[in-house]
Amino acid sequence: MRVIVDFTVVPVGTGVSLSAYIAEVERVLQRSGLHHELHANGTNVEGDWEEVMAAIRGCHEALHAMGVPRIHTDIKLGTRSDREQRMAEKVASVRARMA
Amino acid sequence: MRVIVDFTVVPVGTGVSLSAYIAEVERVLQRSGLHHELHANGTNVEGDWEEVMAAIRGCHEALHAMGVPRIHTDIKLGTRSDREQRMAEKVASVRARMA
Amino acid sequence: MRVIVDFTVVPVGTGVSLSAYIAEVERVLQRSGLHHELHANGTNVEGDWEEVMAAIRGCHEALHAMGVPRIHTDIKLGTRSDREQRMAEKVASVRARMA
Amino acid sequence: MRVIVDFTVVPVGTGVSLSAYIAEVERVLQRSGLHHELHANGTNVEGDWEEVMAAIRGCHEALHAMGVPRIHTDIKLGTRSDREQRMAEKVASVRARMA
Repeated sequence: MRVIVDFTVVPVGTGVSLSAYIAEVERVLQRSGLHHELHANGTNVEGDWEEVMAAIRGCHEALHAMGVPRIHTDIKLGTRSDREQRMAEKVASVRARMA
Repeated sequence: MRVIVDFTVVPVGTGVSLSAYIAEVERVLQRSGLHHELHANGTNVEGDWEEVMAAIRGCHEALHAMGVPRIHTDIKLGTRSDREQRMAEKVASVRARMA
Repeated sequence: MRVIVDFTVVPVGTGVSLSAYIAEVERVLQRSGLHHELHANGTNVEGDWEEVMAAIRGCHEALHAMGVPRIHTDIKLGTRSDREQRMAEKVASVRARMA
Repeated sequence: MRVIVDFTVVPVGTGVSLSAYIAEVERVLQRSGLHHELHANGTNVEGDWEEVMAAIRGCHEALHAMGVPRIHTDIKLGTRSDREQRMAEKVASVRARMA
C-alpha cells in the first residue's frame, strides 16, 4: 500500500533548539532512499507503507541514540484505493485550480 | 520499541456520517489484542511499535475494503528511552498534580 | 461556529516530565467553563470556535508564564454545517454500531 | 503572540478530489495577507495568533459556503517566548546543520 505522509518529530526533554535533531531526521530519510521534502513545519515523504514507517521508526531510534529521552511525533498520512497519487501532483492540481 | 499512540481515521469521498467506519476501526483494534481506548476525537492505543503500526495499516485496509476511496489519518505518537510509560499513568500523573 | 477539538500541548526545552504542564492546561480549561475531557494523549473540548481557540491560546500563555520557552501544539478540529454534534454523541454512535 | 502553523483541511462528505477546496483555502490565505506556503500535505502560515486563527476559521466558513457539510482540520502550531522565529529560518537552520 502506497502512502503520502507529513511528519514532525518533536524532541522533549532536550534544549530549545531542535535543528540538530531535525538534521538527523533528514539524514535518516536520505539513507532510506525515499522521496522526501523538508518544509518549515515537518517533512513530506512518500512510498510504500512499510518503508515509510520503517524510516520514521529509524528517526526515533536515531534521536534516542543521540540522547533524546522522549519524542513526540505527529504523522498525517493519506492512502487511496481509487488511483495512485504522487506528492508533486497534489500541489500541481491545486495550482491548476488557481490559474 | 514501545509506543503510545492517538490516531484519528478520516474517510474521504464517502458520506457525512463516519460512525460505521470508526466502528470498523474499533473492530480491527479489538482483533489486534492491543490495549486501546476510543475517545470523542480518536483512539488511544499502546504497545510494540510494529504491532501498533500493523493495526493502523489494518484499519486502512479494512476501510478501503468497505469502499472508502481515500483515507486521511492523523497519528500522534510518543516513545521514551528513559523509562517505560503506560497510557493509564499519563492521566493519573496529571490528576495527581491537580489534587 | 461550533467546534469539537482534540489538542495536545508539548512543552519543548524543559524537562522530560510534562505532567505539571498538562495539569496547568487542565486548570486553564476548567476556568474557561468549556466542556472538556482529558485522555491519555490530549484533551477533548467543544464549544464556540472563538472560546475554544481563546482557551488554547490561554494554555500557551500560561505555560510560557511558567517558563516554558517553546511550545508545540497539535489540534484536530471538526466543524459541521449539516447539523450540530456533541462529543458525547460521537462515541455513542460508534458504540451503537458495535452492539 | 506570534505563531508558526502548519494546517491541513480535510473536507468530509464530498467527492474524492479535494483540490478545488484546497485552492479555496489558498485564496482565503492570499486575501488574509499572511505569509503562507502550500506544500504537498498542507499549508504553512505565520503571523499574529489572532490573525492566523481568523484565517483558518475563514477557510472553514468558505468551504461550508461551497457546500462541504463536515470539515476535519489538523493544526500543528508553535510559539516561543525565548525569541522570535520565522518559517524561513527553520528550514535554513536545518540545512546549515547538514552542509
